[in-house]
Amino acid sequence: LHSINSLAQIGQLPQGGVRRLAFSAEDVAARLQVTEWMQQAGLAVRIDAAGNLIGRYGGQDPQAAALATGSHLDTVPTGGCYDGSYGVLAGLEVVRVLQEKQMRLRHPLEVIVFSDEEGTMIGSKAMSGQLSRDPSTYSVADGTSIQACLQQIGGDWEGIAQVQRSRDQIAAFVELHVEQGPVLQHSGCQIGVVTGIVGQQRQIITVTGLANHAGTTPMSMRQDALVAAAQLILFVHQLACNTPGDHVATVGSLQVFPNAANVVPGKVEMSLDMRDLCSDHLASLIRQVQQEMDRIASQTQTQFQWQPRLQVDPAPASPTLQTTITQVCRDLGYSHHLLPSRASHDAQDMARITDMGMIFVPSQGGISHNESEFTPSEDCVRGANVLLHTLLRLDQLYP
Amino acid sequence: LHSINSLAQIGQLPQGGVRRLAFSAEDVAARLQVTEWMQQAGLAVRIDAAGNLIGRYGGQDPQAAALATGSHLDTVPTGGCYDGSYGVLAGLEVVRVLQEKQMRLRHPLEVIVFSDEEGTMIGSKAMSGQLSRDPSTYSVADGTSIQACLQQIGGDWEGIAQVQRSRDQIAAFVELHVEQGPVLQHSGCQIGVVTGIVGQQRQIITVTGLANHAGTTPMSMRQDALVAAAQLILFVHQLACNTPGDHVATVGSLQVFPNAANVVPGKVEMSLDMRDLCSDHLASLIRQVQQEMDRIASQTQTQFQWQPRLQVDPAPASPTLQTTITQVCRDLGYSHHLLPSRASHDAQDMARITDMGMIFVPSQGGISHNESEFTPSEDCVRGANVLLHTLLRLDQLYP
Repeated sequence: LHSINSLAQIGQLPQGGVRRLAFSAEDVAARLQVTEWMQQAGLAVRIDAAGNLIGRYGGQDPQAAALATGSHLDTVPTGGCYDGSYGVLAGLEVVRVLQEKQMRLRHPLEVIVFSDEEGTMIGSKAMSGQLSRDPSTYSVADGTSIQACLQQIGGDWEGIAQVQRSRDQIAAFVELHVEQGPVLQHSGCQIGVVTGIVGQQRQIITVTGLANHAGTTPMSMRQDALVAAAQLILFVHQLACNTPGDHVATVGSLQVFPNAANVVPGKVEMSLDMRDLCSDHLASLIRQVQQEMDRIASQTQTQFQWQPRLQVDPAPASPTLQTTITQVCRDLGYSHHLLPSRASHDAQDMARITDMGMIFVPSQGGISHNESEFTPSEDCVRGANVLLHTLLRLDQLYP
Repeated sequence: LHSINSLAQIGQLPQGGVRRLAFSAEDVAARLQVTEWMQQAGLAVRIDAAGNLIGRYGGQDPQAAALATGSHLDTVPTGGCYDGSYGVLAGLEVVRVLQEKQMRLRHPLEVIVFSDEEGTMIGSKAMSGQLSRDPSTYSVADGTSIQACLQQIGGDWEGIAQVQRSRDQIAAFVELHVEQGPVLQHSGCQIGVVTGIVGQQRQIITVTGLANHAGTTPMSMRQDALVAAAQLILFVHQLACNTPGDHVATVGSLQVFPNAANVVPGKVEMSLDMRDLCSDHLASLIRQVQQEMDRIASQTQTQFQWQPRLQVDPAPASPTLQTTITQVCRDLGYSHHLLPSRASHDAQDMARITDMGMIFVPSQGGISHNESEFTPSEDCVRGANVLLHTLLRLDQLYP
């Protein structure tokens, strides 16, 4: 708790909250502070070519793959002091406890600070071998090249291919994070056992009708693109609400053309974002939306175009880790709730190369990416305890 | 027909169509041309303080109130050569025919060019006594004061109150105009007998929900302003389509806040424009929309605000004039169709002070306010014939 408060002073905003953009002076300062704490806790620290900061606490068995935990220190422009930092500092706290008790696990234990989680996610993408070789893929908001950004934090674009790791090196990865949503608070549960990180499909849908005089064009002769779009918006919402499952679907942006009170809308452009843990379920929802688009198009004499913008595959949590975390909650007497993560995390990349698990603690009011992000101390402590005991159990479970 | 083509050269655009903005050099040039033609046709021409250009063809009875016809010469920035000009020139043609036949009606006959129909409608507003005394009400697009504008065309803001006329001076007003909509072409009818000019109610509706993470906010915990807005858009459309009547209702503009693909919409602002010939019917439609807003608000946990922006009362055509025009169509063997005008015309102001009627001819493809506005010559001739014979009949009907 002391470390959380202390780290929150690096990049602290006058109105509260933290601004610690990846690769900025604040990010570098936070990484230096954590490096110092890691070294004090007996971790050997290195920075890989993707700028990931890796603290390693040696294990009893030098041949064993590592158990790993961690998260990120960078924030959104107006962030809170829990998103990311909490997971890193709880991992550090686990090692402090082991050190205090003069304990070593059989497996080496790594605490990883992934670089630029809020932006390119280049740290976890490199470590999981999902990197594009084209540096321009990783555009940074202010226009600085990714090469120059990596240099700021001790990374090196040229050597980035060597960052990739495998199950042989990391037997399992567990990330502790604030939920950033309202589910735990709503359910009254103390700990969230994450079932996986949802896949995401984002499209831009263009509806083309015919712009016309809103006075002189009778209702029966209209090809109103906004009426067609409204039908699709409601269909998507009702489909998402009425189909059993944990998916979400959102039309978040929409623009009307020409957008004048006295003109029947001729064109609408809108986004559609759908997320679910199961690729097949997501595909089935999307098929239903596309069928409905065809129906609406012919009913309203409009045309729909569908342009994929983003596709992220779901990253299911390892059943072993879900069971382990659940068992730990029972042992510690913490109420718990199984839920998917519908936000992105470094863990979703780590799931591509090893067993992945995530532990959530409640976010007050479900608020995150916001200065008023808050998780009470008791919840922070509970989460760290679950992380500790999960790592202890995994140490027994994995060869 | 020759006059239409000749006048279309004043302000003609390279790509076709006409740009003759009110008060511009082109407007002044067109008014001078029409003045010359009026004088050649034996009309006494004057300009009133609102800039209305009035040509008067004396009648046999010096005590009788005038019969009047007319329209406007100004255009939208990219207009056609029929909107407005056609009505003025057909009125002129009627007088030419009378002069040619050496006929005078019992009533004096006035052909009126109203000033700035496409903008402030200051000409017809002044003549019908509906003028605001605050000159800033009449803002002109380029920022010139209305006083300076009126001077350009021989008007005078100071004397504008004297422009108002009454039924004692004008017994009836008939305007001939292109339909600017698709109804006549669709019905295959040659002449439109206008039942009145619709009233219009325009509002800005603000829907307030709660902006939230599109990933982490479960469907059941959302207060999505766009989903609420979509419900209202569809309700309005279905209400307008399914309620018997000739009304139209349009949501033409809509903005989403914050308008990002990954954020549940927190606020929507949209326009609602409703038009009908009957005030009570319009009020009943609006009551139903408001009731539905309340229902949607409580179902979606959003709030609706309703801000009136524009209200124009309906201007019914005089039953005498509707009957007369219909009778003339029958006598001439022209197919005809009763329909409301859903666009604004000077006639809607004239209806406040005297009996008003309008005659429509078809607009090809319903297109107007566009370079490609077109009405075939045969239709133009038919409309002018209906105007001539209507005025002849009215001359018998009115004392």
